[in-house]
Amino acid sequence: MAQTTQASDLLKTIMNVKDLMEHDQNDPLRSFRKLFHLPKGVIYLDGNSLGPAPLKVFQEMETVLRQEWAEDLIRSWNSANWWGLTDRLGGMVAQLIGADANEVVVCDTTSVNLHKVLHAALSLNPGRNKVIAEADCFPSDLYVIEGVKSLRQDIEILLEGRDADCITDLLDNRVGAVLINHVDYRNGHIRDMVSLTRAVHDVGGIVIWDLSHSAGVLPVQLKNCEVDFAVGCTYKYLNGGPGAPAYLYAASKHHSECNQPLIGWFGHVRPFNFERSFEPATGIRRFVCGTQPILSLRALQAGLEIYQDTNLNQIRKKSMALTQLFISLLESECASWNLEIHSPLEASQRGSQVSVRHPQAYAVMQALIARGVIGDFRAPDLMRFGFAPLYIRYQDVQEAVEHLKQILENEEWNQETFLQKATVT
Amino acid sequence: MAQTTQASDLLKTIMNVKDLMEHDQNDPLRSFRKLFHLPKGVIYLDGNSLGPAPLKVFQEMETVLRQEWAEDLIRSWNSANWWGLTDRLGGMVAQLIGADANEVVVCDTTSVNLHKVLHAALSLNPGRNKVIAEADCFPSDLYVIEGVKSLRQDIEILLEGRDADCITDLLDNRVGAVLINHVDYRNGHIRDMVSLTRAVHDVGGIVIWDLSHSAGVLPVQLKNCEVDFAVGCTYKYLNGGPGAPAYLYAASKHHSECNQPLIGWFGHVRPFNFERSFEPATGIRRFVCGTQPILSLRALQAGLEIYQDTNLNQIRKKSMALTQLFISLLESECASWNLEIHSPLEASQRGSQVSVRHPQAYAVMQALIARGVIGDFRAPDLMRFGFAPLYIRYQDVQEAVEHLKQILENEEWNQETFLQKATVT
Repeated sequence: MAQTTQASDLLKTIMNVKDLMEHDQNDPLRSFRKLFHLPKGVIYLDGNSLGPAPLKVFQEMETVLRQEWAEDLIRSWNSANWWGLTDRLGGMVAQLIGADANEVVVCDTTSVNLHKVLHAALSLNPGRNKVIAEADCFPSDLYVIEGVKSLRQDIEILLEGRDADCITDLLDNRVGAVLINHVDYRNGHIRDMVSLTRAVHDVGGIVIWDLSHSAGVLPVQLKNCEVDFAVGCTYKYLNGGPGAPAYLYAASKHHSECNQPLIGWFGHVRPFNFERSFEPATGIRRFVCGTQPILSLRALQAGLEIYQDTNLNQIRKKSMALTQLFISLLESECASWNLEIHSPLEASQRGSQVSVRHPQAYAVMQALIARGVIGDFRAPDLMRFGFAPLYIRYQDVQEAVEHLKQILENEEWNQETFLQKATVT
Repeated sequence: MAQTTQASDLLKTIMNVKDLMEHDQNDPLRSFRKLFHLPKGVIYLDGNSLGPAPLKVFQEMETVLRQEWAEDLIRSWNSANWWGLTDRLGGMVAQLIGADANEVVVCDTTSVNLHKVLHAALSLNPGRNKVIAEADCFPSDLYVIEGVKSLRQDIEILLEGRDADCITDLLDNRVGAVLINHVDYRNGHIRDMVSLTRAVHDVGGIVIWDLSHSAGVLPVQLKNCEVDFAVGCTYKYLNGGPGAPAYLYAASKHHSECNQPLIGWFGHVRPFNFERSFEPATGIRRFVCGTQPILSLRALQAGLEIYQDTNLNQIRKKSMALTQLFISLLESECASWNLEIHSPLEASQRGSQVSVRHPQAYAVMQALIARGVIGDFRAPDLMRFGFAPLYIRYQDVQEAVEHLKQILENEEWNQETFLQKATVT
C-alpha cells in the first residue's frame, strides 16, 4: 500500500499531539456530539448511509404525536403549520447547499424528485434529446433516467465510465441534460461543481446535481455555481431518520419556465379551491405533488435544526482531518494485509468517507460490526467508512483502525458466522 | 327538507330505545373506541380527513425511534425488517380491500401511485388513447391525468359531470383506462364497483379505483370484482397519521405485463447488487421506487393493526346506522333552517359521511368546531361530517346535532370570528 507524502505529514502532525483525546478536547465542533444518541460501545462510521438520532427528535416526536396529531387533530394543518413544512424544511436545507430559501423544497424521495427535475430540465431544452450520466453513479439515478426514456423514446442516454470528468468528452449541442453525483457513493470522489456546470452550460445543456453524499459535510454553492437543478437525500449526513423525505432544488429563474408531470394538489396555487384544472403554485412549491408524511418530516426537522448553529467550513476542515487520519493510520498500522484504499488520497478530492477494498471485505466488515465498529459493505469487495464531523472523534478513528488491525492480524473474519452473507445487507 | 321513509323508520327504531347510551352499550364495536386517543370535549367527525391517533402508536414510535433507529441504527434495515415494511403493510391493507397480500404495497403518496398505475394501465392497452374520469372526482386525481397527458399528447381525456354512472355513456373501444373514485369525497356517494368494472372490461378498458374514502369503512372486494388497479390513502379511516404513505393495488395477473416509469432501486429485483440496468422485482414490489419514510410507515402500522380484529360487515352496518341517525335527527331537529342534505338518503348508496349544504357553511362549521364538534368545510357551501364506526358513538351523533341546532337557533355562527375565512382551511 503506497504511502502518500501528504497523508504521512498529517499523521506526524496528529501523532505528535500524542493524545488524540486532547485533540478532541480542542475540536471546535466537540459540543455537537452530545446532541446525538450514540449507542454505548459503538463507533458509528455509517452516517453516510443512515445518520444517528438527534436527541431532540424524541421530544419533537412527542410533540407532533401527542399534541399536534392526537390532541389538535386536523386543526394542526393550520395551527402547527403542517401545510408549510415542505417549504420550511426546504429553507433549512437551502442554507446548507448555497441556495435561496425559496429554491428548495422537501418532499417525496430522491428518485421521485430526480424524475421531476429530469423532466423539468428536458422541458427547458425541447429540441435536445441527449441525456448524460456517469455509468458508475448511484444506480437508482440511472433507473430514473431509464424510466424517463421509457416515456420519451427520442432520448439517447450516454453513460461514461468511472470518471465524471469524462462527461465533458460527451458534451455537444444535442445535450439536453447532464446528471452528476456530487460525491461518488462508492469511493467518495468529489466532482468539480464549478467546472462541470460551466462545461454543460457552454454547450447549452441543463445540469442536475445529486447531493446525497455531500450536503452537510462540505460546503455546496449551488447558486454561485449557477446550478439548474439538484436533488438529495436527508437520512445520511442530515440525520433525518430512516427514509426521511428528500429535497429538490430548482434555480428560481427556471420556476415558471419548466414543466414536470408529477403534479398534484399540494403543488396547486389554490389547493383548497378543488379546481378541476391544475395551476401550479408560484415558486418551488409547484414541485410538490401529493400529501407529505408529516411524522417523517418532523423527525427531519430535528436533524436540520442542529445545522443551524454550524459552520460548513469548520465541518469540512474536520472531515478532511478525520479521513486523512484514517488513511494515515491504515497505511502505518495495516500495511501488511491486502487492503487497498479506493478513495482519493488527496483530501481536497475526497468527501467524508474512505472506501477500502479487501478480498474478504464482507466478512471483515461483519467482524468489525461484531466489535461495535459499524461501517458498510458494497459488493463485491468494498468496505465504506463514513466520518461525520459532528459526532465522530479523532480517538474513534484510532480505535476503529486498532479493531481492524486486530481482525486482520488474527484472521478474526475467517469464521462461518462472518463469511455467510445475509440476503439483504 | 324532505324526510325519507327509511330515515324516519330508523329514527323511530333508535329513538324508541330512548337511551342512546344503552344503544352504545350494546354496540359490538364498542371496545375499539378505547384504542384511540380522543381529546376531551371533542366529538370528532373528521376521521374522513385525518383519523385520530391509535394509543398504540405512542409505544410503536418509542420503539422505532429509541430502539430501532437510535440504538440499532443501520442494522434495523435487516433486524427490524424495515426493508420489508412496504410489503408487510401492503398485506395488511390487502385484507381490507379484498385483495391478496402480494397485490398491495404501501409507499409514496396517492397521487404518485396513481401516476404509476395510470401509466401501467395504458401500457396494457397500447393502441388506446382515451382516459375517462369523473369531472367531480378528487381534483388531484384529475391533475395526475393531466400530468400523464403532458407526456403523451395522444391521450384524450374525457370528463363526465357529477354522476359516475354517466361514465358508461363514454365507453367505447378506444378506451384505455377509466379512473373512478369509489366514494365521492364531497357527497359520500358510493359507486357500484361490480357493474362499472364490468362495463369498462366489456369494452376492453382497464379500470382504476381510488379507495381513499372507502377502505376501512365498507367492504371492498377488488379481487371478486376483477379490478385491475387501485390506489388509496391511509390517513383517513385507516388512522395512519398525518400524510401517512399511500397504497397501491395491482391485480397479480398484470404484474409482469405492465410498465410504469417511476422505477427506482427499492423496486429492483436485486437492489443490493447496484446494477446499472433496472430489472423489476417480481410481484407488487416493482411499484416501489425510492427509499420510503420508515417513521411514517411504522405509525401507519399501529393504525392497521387495529383492523386485524375487526369485521368489515359489522363496521359497515354501524356506519349506515350512524349516518342514518344523523340524517334523521337533522330532519327532525333542524328542519327550520336552510340545511340541505347533499349525500344519498339511501344508506346503501352512502359511504361513512354525510355532507350538508348551508349558505353560511363555513361560519357554521367554525362555530361547531368552537364547541368541540369537528367536521370540515369544502367550498363553497358544504359541511362534511365523517362517522368512523370504530370510535364514534350513537350519543356523539345526537350531541353533534344538538350543538348544530343551537348554533342555528341562536345564529351563533353570525360572528366576525367565525365568518372570517383563514387562508388555508
